[in-house]
Amino acid sequence: MLKTFRNDLFLRAFTDERLPRPPLWLMRQAGRYLPEYRATRARATSFMDFCRSPALCAEVVLQPLERFALDAAILFSDILTIPDAMGLGLSFEAGEGPRFAHPLRDEAAIAALSAPPLERLRYVFDALDECRRALTREGVQRVPLIGFAGSPFTLACYMIDGGGSGDEFIHTRRLMHMRPDLFARVLAVNTEAVSQYLLAQAEHGADALMLFDSWGGMLAPSAYRHHSLATMERVVAAIRARHPALPIIVFSKGAGASLAATAGIGAAAVGVDWHTDLADARAAAGPAITLQGNFDPALMATDETSIRRAVAAAWAGFDPGYRYIANLGHGITPEASPERVAELVAAVAELGRSAAAPEAI
Amino acid sequence: MLKTFRNDLFLRAFTDERLPRPPLWLMRQAGRYLPEYRATRARATSFMDFCRSPALCAEVVLQPLERFALDAAILFSDILTIPDAMGLGLSFEAGEGPRFAHPLRDEAAIAALSAPPLERLRYVFDALDECRRALTREGVQRVPLIGFAGSPFTLACYMIDGGGSGDEFIHTRRLMHMRPDLFARVLAVNTEAVSQYLLAQAEHGADALMLFDSWGGMLAPSAYRHHSLATMERVVAAIRARHPALPIIVFSKGAGASLAATAGIGAAAVGVDWHTDLADARAAAGPAITLQGNFDPALMATDETSIRRAVAAAWAGFDPGYRYIANLGHGITPEASPERVAELVAAVAELGRSAAAPEAI
Repeated sequence: MLKTFRNDLFLRAFTDERLPRPPLWLMRQAGRYLPEYRATRARATSFMDFCRSPALCAEVVLQPLERFALDAAILFSDILTIPDAMGLGLSFEAGEGPRFAHPLRDEAAIAALSAPPLERLRYVFDALDECRRALTREGVQRVPLIGFAGSPFTLACYMIDGGGSGDEFIHTRRLMHMRPDLFARVLAVNTEAVSQYLLAQAEHGADALMLFDSWGGMLAPSAYRHHSLATMERVVAAIRARHPALPIIVFSKGAGASLAATAGIGAAAVGVDWHTDLADARAAAGPAITLQGNFDPALMATDETSIRRAVAAAWAGFDPGYRYIANLGHGITPEASPERVAELVAAVAELGRSAAAPEAI
Repeated sequence: MLKTFRNDLFLRAFTDERLPRPPLWLMRQAGRYLPEYRATRARATSFMDFCRSPALCAEVVLQPLERFALDAAILFSDILTIPDAMGLGLSFEAGEGPRFAHPLRDEAAIAALSAPPLERLRYVFDALDECRRALTREGVQRVPLIGFAGSPFTLACYMIDGGGSGDEFIHTRRLMHMRPDLFARVLAVNTEAVSQYLLAQAEHGADALMLFDSWGGMLAPSAYRHHSLATMERVVAAIRARHPALPIIVFSKGAGASLAATAGIGAAAVGVDWHTDLADARAAAGPAITLQGNFDPALMATDETSIRRAVAAAWAGFDPGYRYIANLGHGITPEASPERVAELVAAVAELGRSAAAPEAI
């Protein structure tokens, strides 16, 4: 069954069509910088209860679209739903990051690990269904809806260390060095689990899928290719085998030095963080892949002049009209101002329109 | 006056001599992982009082050399002595990072900023003198002594944000975007201050100098070259104008993607972090510069097998016998075990000896 979109600019950025302006969405666009998000969030007792409510998820997914002319929606969930479903006991302390009650700290725990039954993640697929319904009127979907998962390596970091730890993940690094066999087993289980999870999201109507590899960039390039990229490549292959036309975006934060390798695993697009220049990213990734990024999230707490200057600078020597999706180079932060986001949307539309049509009269 | 060293392997790594094994020292080798360091530290009321005591500084500088066959000593101090001397009011909260009482938050504060009189940093030069005396017996210095400073950009991050903030430095990024003129002024003052400070260290007997650019790597390569590399290049030029033979090591953590550029600013050596492969670093930097690094500090909390495997892996496709100084890829952490450090010293000596002399019979 073919879907109809009111705005399909985002999906056209995966084709070789030259677009009138680049599509734009923002990582974590449903987030704490929006007062209406905070109001919805306050109606759930915990962050996981929030994620488990399809109605609340759909509500916050719609909020940024009401305010800003964004070209895609993204499922509201967390990258750690999979290890939670594996029984590791996820919680979020107020003001802190995620915490697992049962991190993988010994061989027995790792031996017992397996991909969770998808039934335990039903709330995510229900949320996706609900978001899709909320986006659709008379059979026409407002914008494409992106599903997502954490990368196998990134999940392993949290599962082994038991939570975020700056960018240290000392237990993970120790296990990688001391027991490469056990580390490989965690990655293999995660690869299977992430593949199943994203396939299910595709079957629940996700129009594109994104792999968030938050921590692959902490590895040396050889280790990144071995532990993170190789496992993401297997996930991408599993999805493409069943859904060859579904665009997949791979985003390895901090792995700018490996962009050429990341561009080669079969994904339709590669995310670019704000530590990388877009022109360099295009040179490394080649012309055949879509790039997504990469404005500094700190811009969302500056002023309109700075935003316009930064958008122009980010596109210096870069063609934003072709295989490109405008976005921040990292998730939007709570310090962002909604007014600045509106200015970014306007700047991308206006500067993007002139940059994207250089031959126009 | 020519100095005599009992062990000058470290200095010979800056020449084109092929060495019998690579020299080794560890960033932050005088640190909390050593019980004797913690005992000395306990005798000072605050971390800054510790840094202000030449006797205590010399004591901890010697400690790792007593335990391990290391090939260099490094001044004990902090990279933030310069902004403290500028009047920003540095303190270290227990268990937290550095904190400035008067961060640079407005135009007036930045307009008033100037390079501090070196007299306010006399305690650092006194510590250097004391370290040199403690290292010397009958006119022979045990190992070379490295002086150091933070890079102009890295100092600016702390001065503007008022302390460490993970790798966020949101105030710094806002100022860079909104007031590039003010940001440039902070960098210019820091460049002058760092140059004077390192020149004074050279005159107080430092045998090599290192620039720690902890945060340049958070910038996109173009911004890194503009804000961090260009200012370090001016510092390097100022030192070389007066001390052309003094080796300078530049270490931009997280800037592996810019290694070729970093290698081109006139320093004798470039530090390589553990997010970068040494063979890639050599290919990018070329054969004419010394590389320093880059074992994962997490290894110091593993076991001997992991350490030997990691040393061998780090040197795969890399020649450790030529223009190379073995080191960690980041400072040693409090979790490190002194036993593991001893095993690393042995592994570098043994594996380095065979790798460094491939043509030997």
